[in-house]
Amino acid sequence: DEIRAYAREMIEREIEKHAADGLGRVDYALATGGGAVVKHSEPFTAGKGGNWFLKGGRGMVHNNADKMLRPSFGEPGQCFALSGTSGFVQIKLRTAIVPEAVTLEHVAKSVAYDRSSAPKDCRVSGWLQGHNMDVAVETEQMFLLTEFTYDLEKSNAQTFNVLDSAGSGIVDTVRLDFTSNHGSPSHTCIYRFRVHGREPDSVSMMAM
Amino acid sequence: DEIRAYAREMIEREIEKHAADGLGRVDYALATGGGAVVKHSEPFTAGKGGNWFLKGGRGMVHNNADKMLRPSFGEPGQCFALSGTSGFVQIKLRTAIVPEAVTLEHVAKSVAYDRSSAPKDCRVSGWLQGHNMDVAVETEQMFLLTEFTYDLEKSNAQTFNVLDSAGSGIVDTVRLDFTSNHGSPSHTCIYRFRVHGREPDSVSMMAM
Amino acid sequence: DEIRAYAREMIEREIEKHAADGLGRVDYALATGGGAVVKHSEPFTAGKGGNWFLKGGRGMVHNNADKMLRPSFGEPGQCFALSGTSGFVQIKLRTAIVPEAVTLEHVAKSVAYDRSSAPKDCRVSGWLQGHNMDVAVETEQMFLLTEFTYDLEKSNAQTFNVLDSAGSGIVDTVRLDFTSNHGSPSHTCIYRFRVHGREPDSVSMMAM
Ligand SMILES: [K+]
Ligand SMILES: [K+]
Ligand SMILES: [K+]
Repeated sequence: DEIRAYAREMIEREIEKHAADGLGRVDYALATGGGAVVKHSEPFTAGKGGNWFLKGGRGMVHNNADKMLRPSFGEPGQCFALSGTSGFVQIKLRTAIVPEAVTLEHVAKSVAYDRSSAPKDCRVSGWLQGHNMDVAVETEQMFLLTEFTYDLEKSNAQTFNVLDSAGSGIVDTVRLDFTSNHGSPSHTCIYRFRVHGREPDSVSMMAM
Repeated sequence: DEIRAYAREMIEREIEKHAADGLGRVDYALATGGGAVVKHSEPFTAGKGGNWFLKGGRGMVHNNADKMLRPSFGEPGQCFALSGTSGFVQIKLRTAIVPEAVTLEHVAKSVAYDRSSAPKDCRVSGWLQGHNMDVAVETEQMFLLTEFTYDLEKSNAQTFNVLDSAGSGIVDTVRLDFTSNHGSPSHTCIYRFRVHGREPDSVSMMAM
Repeated sequence: DEIRAYAREMIEREIEKHAADGLGRVDYALATGGGAVVKHSEPFTAGKGGNWFLKGGRGMVHNNADKMLRPSFGEPGQCFALSGTSGFVQIKLRTAIVPEAVTLEHVAKSVAYDRSSAPKDCRVSGWLQGHNMDVAVETEQMFLLTEFTYDLEKSNAQTFNVLDSAGSGIVDTVRLDFTSNHGSPSHTCIYRFRVHGREPDSVSMMAM
């Protein structure tokens, strides 16, 4: 009976976590929460070309870019594909936070056609940009949040803690740079990138 | 071995329920099943204004209204936001039913930025309107289905049975009134509202 | 302790499978993977009529057709409805494969309004069409992949292995014929159809 109760509780907890966006952890980069891709390296369009760019207050951003800020629901193809084996994406968060971790997710092995397009060596940095998106960011304001290698053999959503060296710096913009992928010569796919953290206790310095 | 079999069976049953729209219970308000929001109090547009209203046979209904009749998949932001701390939504069901319960769902605590916009004190009523949507409903036809308080500490999908006093009255329209929320002064978000019940045995009085 | 470890491992494995599109098996018919419906029998439009057809390189295909190549997420209504009790759908796969199995999925019993529209007796065939979609297929190139009966009492996603008689024939197009359904006189709904298999080792004969 004790074991049954234990099993039941564990099942409920795990399903609840699964239902809560897979990780049960707040994501400040989520598109439906207000996160947005604001800049990125050359997208991979596989010769489809055409009118794939949006002009807007946030510059030139590919139509598919926000896919990396939305759940993939186990579907191959629900990603943002960038040209080549290295590149970057810059994301404006929902609000300014003290970042604590980031999660990079690729499609699950069991349903993937090919996982050679997964990012491999990555570097994440962040800074506080405020509303003034046109001003060049000064280097002393940037924080290196973490460097990591995405491992195809581990769980498909991999979380990496922010380095202690980042202190409690507040950021509202995060940049993911990947310098290699898992073998595809033509493109690298980002299925989902999340940014976890906490909102500063004081009144946020940022308007929403 | 017995325990292993028990655990396996329980896991399969719980995942099956999770995969079956989370509750494994028929929802006559579901948008893909034919349910639709037909009327509501002032929406909360956060200064976005613009052309957010649809004109149609069913009057003025906000573009986002049907979000409350669709799954949220653990994503904050997948809700219909109404202005202020009280308001209402009126829903035409897929077909006429004898209502048995309703479910109100908010976003899970573990992924929410803030849950002060959750509805608190609620009242659900229903009536049979048929096709004649322009005629004023007479009060004697309305049923009070249930009154309840949404509890932020419980599971995020909370089901409330219809009061016995409603008898076996048939309804095709349901109205959710909320008279308070969990603290937000500006708006109240409805993530999902479901209506459970059974179709009358006799030939339905309603055309689809 | 041993049992707890066993239970935990089993729970993780089952949730992982659930998160991996329900089956944890590659689907070459999936719309986001490049699969597409290219031909089908008369769609069921329930008197909605109107401009429901798309013209394109692939001929006349109903707007809703690709719903059967996408997940349903437990929602009734997320299907492609065809007129009558028999009909067919023809699907161009993402790429040419040696087919190993197919999966037919209907909406779960626990959330369905009515399951009489589920397909019953089915026959699946396949062939290699290449780019030349206008040329009539010669009969000797077609493979009967499998015949089966969809059973309403079993799990809602039912997988059927390809017959040995199909050998290791390569196909890029698959046709599902249903010759009966579970009772609806007016229409038959296909919620999801998947095609499993492996890509030939040699360089694919098909361009993507
Ligand atoms: K995604
Ligand atoms: K929703
Ligand atoms: K579907």
